Amino acid sequence: MASTIKHILMLKFKDDLTEEKKQQLIDGYAALPSKIDVMKGFEWGTDLSVENLHQGYTHVFISTFDSTAGRDAYLGHEVHREYAADLLVNLDKVLVVDFAPRVVPIPVSTS
Amino acid sequence: MASTIKHILMLKFKDDLTEEKKQQLIDGYAALPSKIDVMKGFEWGTDLSVENLHQGYTHVFISTFDSTAGRDAYLGHEVHREYAADLLVNLDKVLVVDFAPRVVPIPVSTS
Repeated sequence: MASTIKHILMLKFKDDLTEEKKQQLIDGYAALPSKIDVMKGFEWGTDLSVENLHQGYTHVFISTFDSTAGRDAYLGHEVHREYAADLLVNLDKVLVVDFAPRVVPIPVSTS
Repeated sequence: MASTIKHILMLKFKDDLTEEKKQQLIDGYAALPSKIDVMKGFEWGTDLSVENLHQGYTHVFISTFDSTAGRDAYLGHEVHREYAADLLVNLDKVLVVDFAPRVVPIPVSTS
């Protein structure tokens, strides 16, 4: 059965990277949905947490796929592979977790 | 300016936890939106990634807030504080990253 898969990547860039190179890598990631049609959603941002539990990660990127098959097609896609090769050599830390979201309904506020 | 904040928590439970206790902690987390009205969205799942970059994390939980003020109210909420105290002592690993999502529009497929 196909179900939505969210693919979370967190990273910390190498300290010696220029801001220009960091931005180029972020822009490159954000351009993937226009080139890889199994990407059904994409959002990213920088860490704004205040609990000091970010474990050094500074950026998060969440890609959405329709199924694990879509995720697999993305991972094997030549455009992704080329991008990932460039990205990974510029990172101090990287983490990837994929999950099939179980969405908990939010009660409607009556206030 | 208020903007949506997504709060990602990843964890690995302690190895000696029973499945019952793990489920109790997951259910407890999923019950928070019914008790803390600044929670505007909640989804969770277990790691399904295939790249072996999960860094030991096995579960992910994403809570959504309307603003950093909402996130701050959540963190300070007594129900959250009690839950978090119970959760944290049962974890081997925990990571929290919050971000204000920049959503990249997805091209409409013409195929």
